[in-house]
Amino acid sequence: MTELKTADCRLADVQVSQLTPRARAASRVLAALTPERKNAGLVAMAEALEASTDGLIAANANDVQRAQQAGTAASLVDRLRLTEDRIADMAEGLRALATLADPVGQVVRGWELPNGVHVDQLRVPFGVIGIIYEARPNVTADAAGICLKSGNATLLRGSSSAVESNRAVVAALRSGLDTASLPEDAINLVEGGHETTQEMMRARGQIDLLIPRGGAGLIHAVVEGSQVPVIETGVGNCHLFVDATGDQDIALRVIFNAKTQRPSVCNALETLLVHRDVAEEFLPKALEVLSAAGVTVHGDPDSVMIDSRIVPAGEHEYETEYLSLDLACKVVDDLDAALEHIARYSSGHSETIITNDLSHQQRFTTAVDAAAVLVNASSRFVDGGQFGFGAEIGISTQKLHARGPMGLVEMTTTKYVLVGEGQVRA
Amino acid sequence: MTELKTADCRLADVQVSQLTPRARAASRVLAALTPERKNAGLVAMAEALEASTDGLIAANANDVQRAQQAGTAASLVDRLRLTEDRIADMAEGLRALATLADPVGQVVRGWELPNGVHVDQLRVPFGVIGIIYEARPNVTADAAGICLKSGNATLLRGSSSAVESNRAVVAALRSGLDTASLPEDAINLVEGGHETTQEMMRARGQIDLLIPRGGAGLIHAVVEGSQVPVIETGVGNCHLFVDATGDQDIALRVIFNAKTQRPSVCNALETLLVHRDVAEEFLPKALEVLSAAGVTVHGDPDSVMIDSRIVPAGEHEYETEYLSLDLACKVVDDLDAALEHIARYSSGHSETIITNDLSHQQRFTTAVDAAAVLVNASSRFVDGGQFGFGAEIGISTQKLHARGPMGLVEMTTTKYVLVGEGQVRA
Repeated sequence: MTELKTADCRLADVQVSQLTPRARAASRVLAALTPERKNAGLVAMAEALEASTDGLIAANANDVQRAQQAGTAASLVDRLRLTEDRIADMAEGLRALATLADPVGQVVRGWELPNGVHVDQLRVPFGVIGIIYEARPNVTADAAGICLKSGNATLLRGSSSAVESNRAVVAALRSGLDTASLPEDAINLVEGGHETTQEMMRARGQIDLLIPRGGAGLIHAVVEGSQVPVIETGVGNCHLFVDATGDQDIALRVIFNAKTQRPSVCNALETLLVHRDVAEEFLPKALEVLSAAGVTVHGDPDSVMIDSRIVPAGEHEYETEYLSLDLACKVVDDLDAALEHIARYSSGHSETIITNDLSHQQRFTTAVDAAAVLVNASSRFVDGGQFGFGAEIGISTQKLHARGPMGLVEMTTTKYVLVGEGQVRA
Repeated sequence: MTELKTADCRLADVQVSQLTPRARAASRVLAALTPERKNAGLVAMAEALEASTDGLIAANANDVQRAQQAGTAASLVDRLRLTEDRIADMAEGLRALATLADPVGQVVRGWELPNGVHVDQLRVPFGVIGIIYEARPNVTADAAGICLKSGNATLLRGSSSAVESNRAVVAALRSGLDTASLPEDAINLVEGGHETTQEMMRARGQIDLLIPRGGAGLIHAVVEGSQVPVIETGVGNCHLFVDATGDQDIALRVIFNAKTQRPSVCNALETLLVHRDVAEEFLPKALEVLSAAGVTVHGDPDSVMIDSRIVPAGEHEYETEYLSLDLACKVVDDLDAALEHIARYSSGHSETIITNDLSHQQRFTTAVDAAAVLVNASSRFVDGGQFGFGAEIGISTQKLHARGPMGLVEMTTTKYVLVGEGQVRA
């Protein structure tokens, strides 16, 4: 059965325009399902993934081999690789989704019009969601599961470097849906070159929402070119400002955590701003801790004067999302200068102040225009898992619809239902 | 003072790229204002409008004269015209906004992480909102007021046919802001040809949100071409299905109201679907009422067979948003056929069922994919004013961010604020 589905998915001539009506039809079924039916589907998908472990690893080995032959960096090959443990994790993720509260049907607000018409604003699925993403094949199961739980059909456009893995994962997931008597077309793999991404971006009315997940280049291309509504995710050029009154032990701890705990992610720290009044005292302490952890600090002339371990930085360093053990640094005159720097360079993800001054906290949290603003805490907390959402499809850095970590609720829209007894407008 | 401002606004070489940084700077001030300060601004704007009544009427007379000379239809000229009463209404609208609850700073949800970090999700302004709209100059005051109340700066791109009126209105509003010690650049008029709309659509990062208000052509062009996030408003191809069990008196009352109370608006009824079992009984009664009100009913062959007052309709009639005293009509076999027709032709605005069957009500409200679904009530209730929002910037027919009538809350985004005492991620 699984082999058959894999073969079906391999038809290279299946166009986006052929997939969308099927996905749309499946989405109509999904929208009316009880939470129980969807949860049974998620569990069946998990079981199908586990039952397909050998086939998944064999398919993945082809992708890995191709990547290695193409001279892909070892770290990227590692992200691509599926192991028994990683497959078990994917299955576990689907089972965990089944235990979460179902957002569909939740009443956001409800009231009665003066004439007695009852109005409810309910959460409902979007319909068809397109996910455009890069190499990691575990995203395939993860995104499909989150969309199914929220009642949405998906078009999954993975990277061609993971195409055999993605085919095998999608075939397993679809066979799980079939086992649970749910429509297989709820989960669709989009194959092909760049033109399929273009096709998805033009499918306004057929696809309700596009979410690009990956590097800045991918996200930029989708955001600029799409006629389908997009949620922009991910780029995080995150700042931390050490105020004059900030507790320096807290500052050291938070900077160390935000920079080094996982430097490759979007909520990691990229630029340190230090109040001039405490720079001479604080920077050497920070360099002590950061250098020991292998962090290279790139600073402005003032900071280089204070600590010679800081290497001179050009202006462009402040625009850089390093995603590595590098940190830009600048000495600023005051809170206003910090706010100005952040307004200029922030990507609107997560911005932090270390302060003990209540009025500065309030000014900072009000003035900074970002998905998350933190006071005396690590930006690494800005994450769906840490927020307790149980699932995350990405972190939105745009302002429309969803801003910050996106869980199941953000994968829904709303619908007004008005029930009357023949009322008409006067 | 007002004359001076008018002159300032008249500089034809002011580009969108010059306006956006000013608007952005003003938006930073607005975001930090108390509700009181914004309300004082709204009241001062109202007073400035009233004080400028003579100047507004004189400026408007030039637009009206130009429109008449160009042979513009009388109904459009009427929409363009400003009178003392209409100016008083605009002022009253601004004062009414001042009495509404302020959405900015509302806590959407808040919780504590297991480690004690406190998380609040707060409503905050978008920043800079661009409104692209057609002839009516009262929209200028209305949109500027709603944006100010929700803490947003605006770029108002009105129709060139109303340019002198819009200049005078914006000059008055800006002088009101000045009186209230608020930044005048919170409200900006964009002048110029089609290229300024293009410039707004490309201003991603400078403009946070674009809202087109007007005809289908305008909305389509903005939705298709914009790189700035857009909320689509307005097109309503609305259906009503008379089920076999539907109370026919209710059906007649609701159809009459939804079609004739104000045919030119987006929540008016455009297509009537009648269950075959009751078509022969119901259609003649409906035609009685509708014909008396001057409504022309365009029907499929089955309905024409039943009542000869129904004129034969082609398939394209079902795609038409008449916005006039015309109504498409079709006899359908059952609920499924009604749902299928609606899925095919609906613009996703407001869809109605008249039924007394609970399971049909439930199937209809779940299956229909629209901003609003009504049971035994008129679609004319789908309106910000009727919903009790107190203000409305339009009715969204898209699913991202806002769906249905948009009030002040929909003019905000959210921001997470996390406050800790030095917590870091393990």
